[in-house]
Amino acid sequence: MSTVVALHAFDEAMQLEPLAQGEFRARTSPLYMNMVGPFGGVTAAQMLSAALAHEERAGTPVTATVNFLAPLQAGEFRLRVRKTRQNRSSQHWYVELLQGDDEVRSNATVMTALRRQTWQATELPVPEALRLRPARLDRLDTDMEFINRYEFSFLEGPLFPEGDPPSYESSSTVVWVRDAPSRAVDFAGILAVSDTIFPRIYLRRPDRVPIGTVSLTTYFHCDQSDLDQVGSQPMLGVARGQVFSRNFFDQSSQLWSPEGRCLATSHQIVYFKS
Amino acid sequence: MSTVVALHAFDEAMQLEPLAQGEFRARTSPLYMNMVGPFGGVTAAQMLSAALAHEERAGTPVTATVNFLAPLQAGEFRLRVRKTRQNRSSQHWYVELLQGDDEVRSNATVMTALRRQTWQATELPVPEALRLRPARLDRLDTDMEFINRYEFSFLEGPLFPEGDPPSYESSSTVVWVRDAPSRAVDFAGILAVSDTIFPRIYLRRPDRVPIGTVSLTTYFHCDQSDLDQVGSQPMLGVARGQVFSRNFFDQSSQLWSPEGRCLATSHQIVYFKS
Repeated sequence: MSTVVALHAFDEAMQLEPLAQGEFRARTSPLYMNMVGPFGGVTAAQMLSAALAHEERAGTPVTATVNFLAPLQAGEFRLRVRKTRQNRSSQHWYVELLQGDDEVRSNATVMTALRRQTWQATELPVPEALRLRPARLDRLDTDMEFINRYEFSFLEGPLFPEGDPPSYESSSTVVWVRDAPSRAVDFAGILAVSDTIFPRIYLRRPDRVPIGTVSLTTYFHCDQSDLDQVGSQPMLGVARGQVFSRNFFDQSSQLWSPEGRCLATSHQIVYFKS
Repeated sequence: MSTVVALHAFDEAMQLEPLAQGEFRARTSPLYMNMVGPFGGVTAAQMLSAALAHEERAGTPVTATVNFLAPLQAGEFRLRVRKTRQNRSSQHWYVELLQGDDEVRSNATVMTALRRQTWQATELPVPEALRLRPARLDRLDTDMEFINRYEFSFLEGPLFPEGDPPSYESSSTVVWVRDAPSRAVDFAGILAVSDTIFPRIYLRRPDRVPIGTVSLTTYFHCDQSDLDQVGSQPMLGVARGQVFSRNFFDQSSQLWSPEGRCLATSHQIVYFKS
């Protein structure tokens, strides 16, 4: 007698089939598609998952930089993980995502470490929004499938600016976010959520110019015990664009637990067509 | 008859000897040493220079992430540059720094692109300090040799906190900085300067705990014409720590031209011993 338990769509997307040491087969998830191609946050999470699945991996992620080199096609791809350095309490990883004729479509550098309790301080201002828990999170109804895998409560800087005329003065967003259905957060989940903060240029310009994230860097300020404390509660995302110039802009964001811990800080640089 | 022109110490440090396509020999500079080992900003700049020296390179850097895997010893090392992707108007690069028994001591991902004039906006607040030009920049007298290759004018958050007792409440620094002797800034120079903003933990804790940058990401918001406009003028650096937790902290900084252009934004995650 066997019991079939349905996997959460995110866990389904994170499934890796081992091919050799440090080599896995994975596939894009139809449930996490963006306008064109798969949601980069899930691609990044798959690359991080591959590094974490390496049999020699110890510790938890401290930093991950994911570069998006070329569009990923729907379907299968391979992830190749190489340990570039073994230190006493940390490891460095290089991950390549290969598709088609072994073409590198994305690459990533990841550093993992054993983390201990130390002196700590949060110098970022604690967002006002953390004083109030969200009343209700809603699924948005969009044609971006991956957006339907999350639920949100926007306090500032909504996905679709409203008003008559809409305001395009600031690119700040403050938003509660959670997987839908809810799911206990893990490192891959943190990385994916850090990319749900949509491109800031859409809050600054009414025209939806073509864009594409070039490179995403997320710093993890948490270990497993911190994630266990968050569980499946919503997290607060705070994001803002910094400089928009010569076809590229950068944006920075932070992800907070409801208890006021800054779990991750994240930065990305995004191409935009003028 | 020949004329010998002395190279600037920074340009001397950037010298690359081609060994094969995409492969160069370089060496650490005794003039840019840190407390222990070479200054990471110059190592990062050497890696960027190697990518830019690749014969197929087109365009200027948009983003560079440099990971410091293991201590670099004083002396020679090799830089191996691989083009991971050629797009229509952009290229991706992977750089490894090898020393000793071909051990990878640092690696980097770099993206270069042809940049055009587009809609632009700076959402970061323009620092107050940009209203006043610095009266005088000074060399500091420290035992960190690389610090002597720059001159500074600190408006906030000095290298060595003063007062009785010194304040360790904030890790903000606002500082004018320039090569000493002065030098027309280039992309490698921007990357090096983005790492002169010393570890924020030294503004928060009186004890000088051992630290080490793990990963540095700099986004370039400038092309060559912007750098030509800066020339050898001082630039304004603004930096702050974000989260200090479990042996690591991150810090973010911006580099401004005296005319008020944000030339680069930079982020790094740093190990600290508790």
